[in-house]
Amino acid sequence: MKKKMLVIGAVAAGTSAAAKARRVDPELEIKVFADGEDISYGACGLPYYIGGTIKTMEKLLARTIEDFARHDIEVRNRCQALEIDPGERTVLLRDLVQNRNFTERYDRLVIATGARPMLLDCRNSNLPGIFTLRTVSDGVAIKEYLEKKKPANILIVGAGYIGLEMAETLSRLGLSVTLAERQPHVAPNMDADMAAKIQEHLEQHGVRVLVDTEIVGFEGQETVQRAFTPSSSFPVDFVLVSIGVRPNTQLAADAGIKLGVANAIKINSRMETNLEGIYAAGDCATAHHRVTGKDVYIPMGTTANKQGRVAGANAAGGSEVFRGVLGTGIARVFDLEISRTGLTEKECMPAGFDFYSHSVECRTAAIPGLAGPIWIKLTASRADNRLLGAQIVGRNNAAKRIDVYAAAITMGARLEDIYDMDLAYSPPFSPVWDPVLVALNRFR
Amino acid sequence: MKKKMLVIGAVAAGTSAAAKARRVDPELEIKVFADGEDISYGACGLPYYIGGTIKTMEKLLARTIEDFARHDIEVRNRCQALEIDPGERTVLLRDLVQNRNFTERYDRLVIATGARPMLLDCRNSNLPGIFTLRTVSDGVAIKEYLEKKKPANILIVGAGYIGLEMAETLSRLGLSVTLAERQPHVAPNMDADMAAKIQEHLEQHGVRVLVDTEIVGFEGQETVQRAFTPSSSFPVDFVLVSIGVRPNTQLAADAGIKLGVANAIKINSRMETNLEGIYAAGDCATAHHRVTGKDVYIPMGTTANKQGRVAGANAAGGSEVFRGVLGTGIARVFDLEISRTGLTEKECMPAGFDFYSHSVECRTAAIPGLAGPIWIKLTASRADNRLLGAQIVGRNNAAKRIDVYAAAITMGARLEDIYDMDLAYSPPFSPVWDPVLVALNRFR
Repeated sequence: MKKKMLVIGAVAAGTSAAAKARRVDPELEIKVFADGEDISYGACGLPYYIGGTIKTMEKLLARTIEDFARHDIEVRNRCQALEIDPGERTVLLRDLVQNRNFTERYDRLVIATGARPMLLDCRNSNLPGIFTLRTVSDGVAIKEYLEKKKPANILIVGAGYIGLEMAETLSRLGLSVTLAERQPHVAPNMDADMAAKIQEHLEQHGVRVLVDTEIVGFEGQETVQRAFTPSSSFPVDFVLVSIGVRPNTQLAADAGIKLGVANAIKINSRMETNLEGIYAAGDCATAHHRVTGKDVYIPMGTTANKQGRVAGANAAGGSEVFRGVLGTGIARVFDLEISRTGLTEKECMPAGFDFYSHSVECRTAAIPGLAGPIWIKLTASRADNRLLGAQIVGRNNAAKRIDVYAAAITMGARLEDIYDMDLAYSPPFSPVWDPVLVALNRFR
Repeated sequence: MKKKMLVIGAVAAGTSAAAKARRVDPELEIKVFADGEDISYGACGLPYYIGGTIKTMEKLLARTIEDFARHDIEVRNRCQALEIDPGERTVLLRDLVQNRNFTERYDRLVIATGARPMLLDCRNSNLPGIFTLRTVSDGVAIKEYLEKKKPANILIVGAGYIGLEMAETLSRLGLSVTLAERQPHVAPNMDADMAAKIQEHLEQHGVRVLVDTEIVGFEGQETVQRAFTPSSSFPVDFVLVSIGVRPNTQLAADAGIKLGVANAIKINSRMETNLEGIYAAGDCATAHHRVTGKDVYIPMGTTANKQGRVAGANAAGGSEVFRGVLGTGIARVFDLEISRTGLTEKECMPAGFDFYSHSVECRTAAIPGLAGPIWIKLTASRADNRLLGAQIVGRNNAAKRIDVYAAAITMGARLEDIYDMDLAYSPPFSPVWDPVLVALNRFR
């Protein structure tokens, strides 16, 4: 009998696992189950679909069920996994279309159940007009609501990447946007000094920014009409709640699979859970942080793809490892680009590092018309001068420079390893001293 | 008596040395001599000055004589160094304005005499209308010639970075451009397969490209009118010769300073020559190649700045090292961006590496309107899987990605160190698998 691999979940990690497993073992029987309608989509593109720069929903879909069928991978959507029996090596599933249960046996199981948006735990938080943005369906629903109901007063709760990107998107659609963040500054995964530049830019583009601000309730008749902070209220007719996600791990936990940080599934570098033959990957799983050496829960599309691939390879009999994350992130906010990798100052403290930081401002190019400002903040370990983290805010090709620091941190670079790196220079692309190098000067 | 440092040369390396020396030792007496009129200019900006995107010549000047004076650094232009006497620790100089010689003693001497363009050794190669582009004066002369004489048929000899950039510049000015390269392909410091895409792009923009083509002579009455290859001739009324440079090292050699590869001044990682107290930096000096471990002569503005800084630091009593180059380069050619770092295939062979290469084509972003094609070619060592080199050709923020590979090569990365690097992803900036990572897949 052929060996059989089941995959629960069919977005980034699940489909990556299935595709990689097929490449490793052409004979393996592979079945993938998704509880939703859509599979293999790029959720990070949703703000751009809503804004119209990605024209159709189909552009968000990397691969279709038919694409997988051509590689002899069966993908069934609208099938919910109800129970895993690790002893029998079976999964009980429910066909949500025909409303009936069925059981599938497995030799190898990959859990890629993803995450779900956190909701506001407050009065009337489920009024129509209050949305989260996670799935293609969410995106389609928001786009339809904007077109049909023509809301004018937007509230975005949470100023992380999705909140910031949607602030841009909805402002560009001509709507009045208020962005409320419970933390003391926007972009809460960056340091306050860098975030201040982002807030300034948002405000220059007409976004009303409320920091240190908790939304404690809503009011409305048929749809949301008013939002409340502890001390005030204001009219809203559309709300996006983007305050983070929680891993979908109840199914795994019920089967005796060990959870870790943030209740995500604890995995090792081979994506193995504590139960033999069961792997986990993506937004339902932990990841190893390459700077702290600790498990973290930083759900990202990039990590989901990488972990999925490693899980699929190993489940199919290969041998691969994923060596972890740096918490790298990037976003565009109007004309501003923001990025980070490694640890911020805020993150260094609980991690126990004796650190120091310096910031610089310079320009991204030597031709005036192509150059923009770039602020770089670097954080290093006092003990051994190792680069711990970098943050960038700027314009005109500023933020993607973070990858050079990510490469350096991955390789364990000390500051002196970066000082004299031979980076590329020509006037359209950088000053003769690239900002990446200039930022190091402050440490010399 | 105060210690005294002399610097011969006042472009990138010389001025960097002087400025750094001042920071290291506020008491040091520092004098800088330049034989030309202009000092501290960014020669790499000259094509953009000629093309008009850098509006005035002054924008090319990083610092003026007055700027240096404010830091108690005396810079004298139009002063030519005639002779170094290492025994007496003196330099004989000639004031080219007043036409008289004078002698300066030194405790420390930094030689930053730069390089001069190679000329064609052929019939009538000095006819008016035949130019090289190296100094601000060259740039001003070319710009004036173009405006006054309004040439229509341009010949550029040599398809390195300057030749390629000037092909763009002069085409954009509406002129008919022929680009002749003696090597079998344009961009001779890249591999033929990557160069083919550059040639195609040049031809799409109306540049006539002649490869394997040597220019063997010119004809003309008052100005150049015709160019000759061994087998044909064609009308030209403006010629740019950009076939490389030679280091200006006669002064050093006459003083007993040891030369190395390409007759450049042989220096160690502290920028010391074989003579005590005498340093060299920039386009007149060798550099250590971080991949081959050998001395190379790859004159670049970036390297000149770095070496100048190290020479200045050490001459002033500090202790710094420059750990070498990767031959990193980048250029824009119309809408195409090209870059390289480390070794090409061509360079691997004489260096004795058992290497292998793979290429990929992908896209630079996930938003269609922001994405362009990107071709990446990587070359690795079979012996230990170390990344040896990378070449990029593409559009829309393709080429600066070379810096990630430069960082990896600097740190001695093997391919498997790069596979799962946590690089930044968001749809405006990259696909979920950044092209930098996709290029590695072909090696797995």
